[in-house]
Amino acid sequence: MAQETNRQWILRARPEGLIDPTIFELRESPVPELTEGQVLAKTMYLSFDPTQRGWMAMDTYMPMVPLGEPMRAGGIAQVIESRHRKFKPGDLINYLCGWQDYVVFEPDRPGLVPATRIPGHLDPALTLALSLTGLTAYFGLLEIGHPKPGETVLVSGAAGATGSVVGQIAKLKGCRTIGIAGGAEKCAWLTETAGFDAAIDYKNEAIGERLSALCPEGVNVFFDNVGGEILDEVLLHLALRARIVICGAISQYNRPDDLYGVKNYLALLLSRGRAEGFIVLDYLDRAVEGLLCLNKWIKDGKVVQEIDLQHGFDQIPATLIRLFTGANLGKQLLKVSDAPLPVRSNALEKTVFNIMSSITTWRKG
Amino acid sequence: MAQETNRQWILRARPEGLIDPTIFELRESPVPELTEGQVLAKTMYLSFDPTQRGWMAMDTYMPMVPLGEPMRAGGIAQVIESRHRKFKPGDLINYLCGWQDYVVFEPDRPGLVPATRIPGHLDPALTLALSLTGLTAYFGLLEIGHPKPGETVLVSGAAGATGSVVGQIAKLKGCRTIGIAGGAEKCAWLTETAGFDAAIDYKNEAIGERLSALCPEGVNVFFDNVGGEILDEVLLHLALRARIVICGAISQYNRPDDLYGVKNYLALLLSRGRAEGFIVLDYLDRAVEGLLCLNKWIKDGKVVQEIDLQHGFDQIPATLIRLFTGANLGKQLLKVSDAPLPVRSNALEKTVFNIMSSITTWRKG
Repeated sequence: MAQETNRQWILRARPEGLIDPTIFELRESPVPELTEGQVLAKTMYLSFDPTQRGWMAMDTYMPMVPLGEPMRAGGIAQVIESRHRKFKPGDLINYLCGWQDYVVFEPDRPGLVPATRIPGHLDPALTLALSLTGLTAYFGLLEIGHPKPGETVLVSGAAGATGSVVGQIAKLKGCRTIGIAGGAEKCAWLTETAGFDAAIDYKNEAIGERLSALCPEGVNVFFDNVGGEILDEVLLHLALRARIVICGAISQYNRPDDLYGVKNYLALLLSRGRAEGFIVLDYLDRAVEGLLCLNKWIKDGKVVQEIDLQHGFDQIPATLIRLFTGANLGKQLLKVSDAPLPVRSNALEKTVFNIMSSITTWRKG
Repeated sequence: MAQETNRQWILRARPEGLIDPTIFELRESPVPELTEGQVLAKTMYLSFDPTQRGWMAMDTYMPMVPLGEPMRAGGIAQVIESRHRKFKPGDLINYLCGWQDYVVFEPDRPGLVPATRIPGHLDPALTLALSLTGLTAYFGLLEIGHPKPGETVLVSGAAGATGSVVGQIAKLKGCRTIGIAGGAEKCAWLTETAGFDAAIDYKNEAIGERLSALCPEGVNVFFDNVGGEILDEVLLHLALRARIVICGAISQYNRPDDLYGVKNYLALLLSRGRAEGFIVLDYLDRAVEGLLCLNKWIKDGKVVQEIDLQHGFDQIPATLIRLFTGANLGKQLLKVSDAPLPVRSNALEKTVFNIMSSITTWRKG
């Protein structure tokens, strides 16, 4: 393999404000030789997530990406060479591939997150979409939001990868769902395709007035991906004992030195409400449960997972910026390459997966 | 009774900024004649609480005090005339007496809060102190804060009526307790009398630096009575899965049109923390449990309930303002009059109360 070239997008400076693509630089180097216990995989798809802005800027729930190293990102890769008994060429893996053509990992020294094999019969792009944002929607809504049938669930960033799935799971749980998104196109998609009961276009509508009209009894669960002014406005529309799932604050990630101050937090007192932070990494031990449910719901047509798929290694930095300009609709992915080898799969694994999906989904309602 | 005069402090305007005593005016009228089912009581003690600023200004968890009526306030009064079979002259009651010498209530039409008899052997001022702020401390800390032995519990407004009891209950539960208060005198009282492990003087010390030094592992439970800048600073010092009890925000009550914006709320996300609003009225059905425990702890010398007792009907408006200038240390009460009749009490009631206190305290640790 050493004759192949590994292209990498290197982080060379910390972001300030909206991400400037020149903080990344392209570097080419030979694909490394493996030593015992290592596995080499070729990146097929990369995932783009708002939290990556944090990874670039500072230590958060993970250490920040070191300058001079490839940008960190989740992805799907195919094993092309293995010196570890548990991985074989042709296997598909879900891993922090990073912005590079080839990634080397050591299963016995997993680092931040272990590489996990994914069943070969699954669609790799869909699996990547579900594995971070889908699970975020699933566990954040169900474990922190505790939606009850008949309640009103409000979602900000509702046309995004996480938000759109939150609304659809809430609907499955018998809730009334309202999404906040930017622009008429996204709002139409929310009600027409994703099954939201109503949508609020924050770019063209007064959120407060719309909430008063749509939720005269108040919001029971607010799943917040946006933060800032939208959160401040929603605080004035909480029902008694409302739950706010603090999943993210994409409105704030580009302005760390000029954070918006939330004035209306005392509404939590009057409503006896709760705001709780949530990070999906805390639920990775239950990832299989979430993936089984989500796959079944999607297969049965009950949940739509929209994917915004970009193409080409050179487009990687620009694709990250799409998240912060609101250009994406649904989960932002980029396809780096097709699978270089036939994908390893087997019928028994497929059968077991489908049976487990049915059982888990049935048990979880 | 009709020949007696009932003095009342009438609310004649809504407060703006720090309360101006001229928004109250003194009115004198005859004590009303009772009709069937009514009870007349004479006010002995009045309670002063930060939440009363809200009652004057707007509808909150209670409707606002109507202009032209006596200011609403909890108090202890003695029944002097009764046309209801359950109340007899000499009974002490805990009720929303309001700022007036005499109050009429109808037990079968209780209004906002029912009048409750208190055992005659209890100290009426202490019982009044415990019945709102003591119960707030008890239920807010235990039911929302969920302190565990060995955890660090931080309290703002720690020298106040609620805060000082919070810290002492936390200590009883095996926690390390840190109080934030204004001035060296209050801070000395916290560590020397109320048994806090440490105190931070927000008027003379940098809260952030002190928290870094005192809580390098972060704060597990923050019981917040103050809000605003102190809350914003504490958010930067949360331990993983911290709980914030939003009990009040005395720093904000005088500036409803200029609320402080909390910039660091995203710390809840990184810490997977929770901020939850709390109002003691939701726990009144369990008031007996709390009062039994608190009485026993005080009797056993495990909890000190400091009372700042002012005197005289004419001092009522000025006493409310003490809360907002930080003049009070401990629970702010005012004595209006001595009991006009011998207090009704009986030995059996006293015995039952003491046995119940022991059992409840033992069961609740």
